[in-house]
Amino acid sequence: MQDRLQQLINIFQKEKLDALIVSSIPNIIYLTFLSGFSKDEREAFLFITKNEKYILTDGRYSEAVKSKVPDFKLIEISSKISFEEALKTLVRKHNIKRLGFDGDNISFLEHKKLSRLLNDLNHFTLGRLRTIKSATEIIAIEKACNLGDKTFKFILGKIKKGVSEKELTFEIEFFIKKHGSDISFPPIVAFGKNSSVPHHVPTNNKLTNNQIVLLDFGVKYKNYCSDMTRTVFFGKPTIEQKRMYETVLLAQQKAIEFLSGKSDKEYPMQRILLGKNVDKVARDYIISKGYSSIPHSVGHGIGLEVHEAPHISPNSKDILKEGMVFSIEPGIYIPGFGGVRIEDLVVLEKNGPRLLTHSPKRIIEI
Amino acid sequence: MQDRLQQLINIFQKEKLDALIVSSIPNIIYLTFLSGFSKDEREAFLFITKNEKYILTDGRYSEAVKSKVPDFKLIEISSKISFEEALKTLVRKHNIKRLGFDGDNISFLEHKKLSRLLNDLNHFTLGRLRTIKSATEIIAIEKACNLGDKTFKFILGKIKKGVSEKELTFEIEFFIKKHGSDISFPPIVAFGKNSSVPHHVPTNNKLTNNQIVLLDFGVKYKNYCSDMTRTVFFGKPTIEQKRMYETVLLAQQKAIEFLSGKSDKEYPMQRILLGKNVDKVARDYIISKGYSSIPHSVGHGIGLEVHEAPHISPNSKDILKEGMVFSIEPGIYIPGFGGVRIEDLVVLEKNGPRLLTHSPKRIIEI
Repeated sequence: MQDRLQQLINIFQKEKLDALIVSSIPNIIYLTFLSGFSKDEREAFLFITKNEKYILTDGRYSEAVKSKVPDFKLIEISSKISFEEALKTLVRKHNIKRLGFDGDNISFLEHKKLSRLLNDLNHFTLGRLRTIKSATEIIAIEKACNLGDKTFKFILGKIKKGVSEKELTFEIEFFIKKHGSDISFPPIVAFGKNSSVPHHVPTNNKLTNNQIVLLDFGVKYKNYCSDMTRTVFFGKPTIEQKRMYETVLLAQQKAIEFLSGKSDKEYPMQRILLGKNVDKVARDYIISKGYSSIPHSVGHGIGLEVHEAPHISPNSKDILKEGMVFSIEPGIYIPGFGGVRIEDLVVLEKNGPRLLTHSPKRIIEI
Repeated sequence: MQDRLQQLINIFQKEKLDALIVSSIPNIIYLTFLSGFSKDEREAFLFITKNEKYILTDGRYSEAVKSKVPDFKLIEISSKISFEEALKTLVRKHNIKRLGFDGDNISFLEHKKLSRLLNDLNHFTLGRLRTIKSATEIIAIEKACNLGDKTFKFILGKIKKGVSEKELTFEIEFFIKKHGSDISFPPIVAFGKNSSVPHHVPTNNKLTNNQIVLLDFGVKYKNYCSDMTRTVFFGKPTIEQKRMYETVLLAQQKAIEFLSGKSDKEYPMQRILLGKNVDKVARDYIISKGYSSIPHSVGHGIGLEVHEAPHISPNSKDILKEGMVFSIEPGIYIPGFGGVRIEDLVVLEKNGPRLLTHSPKRIIEI
């Protein structure tokens, strides 16, 4: 935790800021390990100067703060002292001239209130703070992935004629929670032509013969997320379904190979590995086989949030580095017919990418 | 849906705006009934002018938009057309001079991007749009409450020596999902002294004799939320525990009576029913019995979000009106000892408040 705070302090000193307001929940978890705050409401701020660190929250959380992060000074917000007043006091006390805040996370109206405190407010993107994962973080993500793999194995046994998308969703969630973890997002289960909707919301539709079954789900273990997708066939896949599957699988393999640098012949060797180029490898391959371009990014970083930096998308400017964890998830979607997506998590290590999800990727017929 | 859009159009015409950007997910659900979008990422915007309505989203949602909201014009966002570019085109096409946006929901950085489109950007709070519920909405909340009551009855049978807080949380969630609904927030289950932390995160602590059991959970039925809290006793409550319980219960009853206007003798008759005065009734009663003030609001509006307007808190300026649905949830929390909270949902009707949750509130010993 000290390292993380020091990293934050280094960043804001470089930006010539005197103090920083941290407001996003994943960043608060990252810096304090406190994970009880609501994501939907403003319940806490951190206020970090070079020498002091404060947590501003209300009485509901006082006990947790005192017992779990005694090194943070607690400032209790109530109907008598608002966040703005408490921040104003801190700004004055520490004689803060230049104050940074998370521009992605502070709303327009909050900014308006804050700007009454101080003229020299500087927005600041903290999104990059968490892109390089520590060994401990990678282990947590890996454990989440392991439970994801177990869940996949379990759910294969539940794919039966007449089961509904919602029932399978529920079984996935039940299994993950029974094992002491949480889901990282509501699982997606899509049968037949529903699989052509990349973010399908599971229905009461029942499984019938010869349908595609797309399963996209993730585990949250100690606040760290996993994410995986597998597409299986209930009955024998048609030639077209097989062709789609094999194209997606090869697109994924090509992207992963590209990460490792083994595909130098196809793409010029790059010292700088750009997210957009990884996207391009998988995307171009799918297009080259006559399918439509992928209607989403080929991948995304993952950690305390399911989707976080780095971005692996056509417009990404992100450079992929050692210690980053992200998904590679190409897909083909044919409206009214069906879709295939295959998604794994990868960590970039010194010697190349290492897969964190290990569920089989051969064609599975049930 | 037409009524809701018309209401929105009336509002922004009154504000002399030419068009409005709607960005918050609950507001998008309210206006389109589309509920698949992520709450954590920006996946859709509505753009509403007097005569036209657009939905901007990416290819993953195109099929759902076309089949479910054909009256909205779909503008597909991709790596080639960003949200900003699509909005810019619309602003030009409709010759928009004054554009409104949701100031609570648009981040500082998003606002910065939008302000490049148009000089005359006007923030606008849409939070009030949903405070008065229609009959259909009240029925949905009531159904969510009914399943909440069933869940409470069910969970009483699961409160046994050695069960953990997490296990009970899981049973609550399991029961609600088995009945085809969702949870409206992660359930809170707190044993013994943990009950003094109003937003306790359930642990693996096991239930032992003579502990308080606090249960706070909600159901989401067709996107509408319920919320309820009950505090029961595993074993015979002590005299002090009983006194706490009865004080909280009476504080709640007094606040509900105040809503009905039946307690005119204690509080002067008010034509205008203020949220802050309802809060005061319960809060003052608890303080008058020698306990600390409640470390949270006495109540909150509820609907598509668990917490929404109106606010029932010491600083609330909200006027409570017919058709509003909100919680009344006083509590007493003694650190290291334990806490009691009792929470019900109420709808304000012509003839006064009507309870939507019906679980028993006598002292329950298990």
